[in-house]
Amino acid sequence: MAQPVKPARTSSATAQRHRVRQDLAAAAMHLFASQGYEATTVDEIAAAAGVARRTFFRHFRSKEEAIFPDHDDTLVRVGEVLESAEPHEHPLDTVCRGITEVLRMYAEAPEVSVERYRLTREIPILREREIASVARYERLFTRYLLGHFDESAHRDGDDDPLLAEVAASAVVAAHNHVLRRWLRAGGKGDVEAQLDHAFVVIKDTFGTGIGGGRALPAAPPATVSTTGEVVIAVARTNASPAEVMRTIEKALKGA
Amino acid sequence: MAQPVKPARTSSATAQRHRVRQDLAAAAMHLFASQGYEATTVDEIAAAAGVARRTFFRHFRSKEEAIFPDHDDTLVRVGEVLESAEPHEHPLDTVCRGITEVLRMYAEAPEVSVERYRLTREIPILREREIASVARYERLFTRYLLGHFDESAHRDGDDDPLLAEVAASAVVAAHNHVLRRWLRAGGKGDVEAQLDHAFVVIKDTFGTGIGGGRALPAAPPATVSTTGEVVIAVARTNASPAEVMRTIEKALKGA
Repeated sequence: MAQPVKPARTSSATAQRHRVRQDLAAAAMHLFASQGYEATTVDEIAAAAGVARRTFFRHFRSKEEAIFPDHDDTLVRVGEVLESAEPHEHPLDTVCRGITEVLRMYAEAPEVSVERYRLTREIPILREREIASVARYERLFTRYLLGHFDESAHRDGDDDPLLAEVAASAVVAAHNHVLRRWLRAGGKGDVEAQLDHAFVVIKDTFGTGIGGGRALPAAPPATVSTTGEVVIAVARTNASPAEVMRTIEKALKGA
Repeated sequence: MAQPVKPARTSSATAQRHRVRQDLAAAAMHLFASQGYEATTVDEIAAAAGVARRTFFRHFRSKEEAIFPDHDDTLVRVGEVLESAEPHEHPLDTVCRGITEVLRMYAEAPEVSVERYRLTREIPILREREIASVARYERLFTRYLLGHFDESAHRDGDDDPLLAEVAASAVVAAHNHVLRRWLRAGGKGDVEAQLDHAFVVIKDTFGTGIGGGRALPAAPPATVSTTGEVVIAVARTNASPAEVMRTIEKALKGA
């Protein structure tokens, strides 16, 4: 069922809030980089952004949060992506679309993201702040996956919370990997395409077990891969058995 | 090659260091719980543990680190587990043994771990500090797995860093899940057995793709599982092809 449309904040209030947060973040980034993180006070950040100290604390709980102005809004947007997913979409695909929203947050301002990455590498407390922010997305995905295991699988569900958490962490790890590589390359290149590639690799490698019974959308009718001592065959049960068997037999003989 | 034995610290110095850290941690836990995290100063923690403020800062960088006295040593011990692994051990199993060391750190003092968990749930900065600590293990595992992909797989290695990071995150997510469940249950029960079970579930579900070509030690000659629209067959290539084919054919017909 589609979600009812929520009454939006007045757009001017939203724009104002957004502008203040961006100004504070830009001021914090500049001060951290120019005079050092420890030497910078909240008062200085507020003054540089032209607002009062109490305004700073309406937007951020602490100094180390100030350079991450967008995670709160992005978390809300990711939640909306999950809530508005079509019922037929594979839950893992929905989660991949969710984390793509996070990636876009970084990709929208490559220069800012690259500079912030430089700061997070130098200042452990900023790095830890960012790790904690990303953990919030992971918890959201875990809850979503847990609520969307396919009941038609009829399996013992005792391990569902474990599998949901592991699958969510895999998606977030893929995002982190792709994002970090892009940031190290100076924010150049199509990072969203790189993330899509990572999702394909993960599904090919780990994906057969995720989702509790539904075929992954990208799965061909039958695939066989032989790596060293193991042959792995994945087939849709509605594929022709004869065709599947031929493929597997060939792989076994060739091994 | 076996690592050369490193000269140990004198045991009395090590014991002294350990005792001071434990005393500071106990004092911090007590003060955070009794008078609140914000209201507690480093000076008070040091005084309660009977040491000077500068001694506190020889052991911990900040107030929020004080309740986690064991992560540094555990990280070293986990590194030793990885370095001393036998060459024939599957790298993913080595990593599982590594994270088991982390679990033991919590399991050694259930009451302390449960009380600390309560604090980390109430005080976001402590929770984030712990998340950051666990991220260090994950980075160690990622590097280890990346250095131990089996070259005999002869595959394109471009995605190895991605797969290493995703596999490491899966192992850590399993640990986090089992640990959290145990802490919520008041630290009762055999948590190490629960972690071993989680590893089995993960290997069964996601494990076929991890390891770049070597059979997982627990893999039977051939297994077939049918879940909804997909049949997955995993066979060792040295199993009898006829036997493997019979098993798969049966599964396909039964689906």
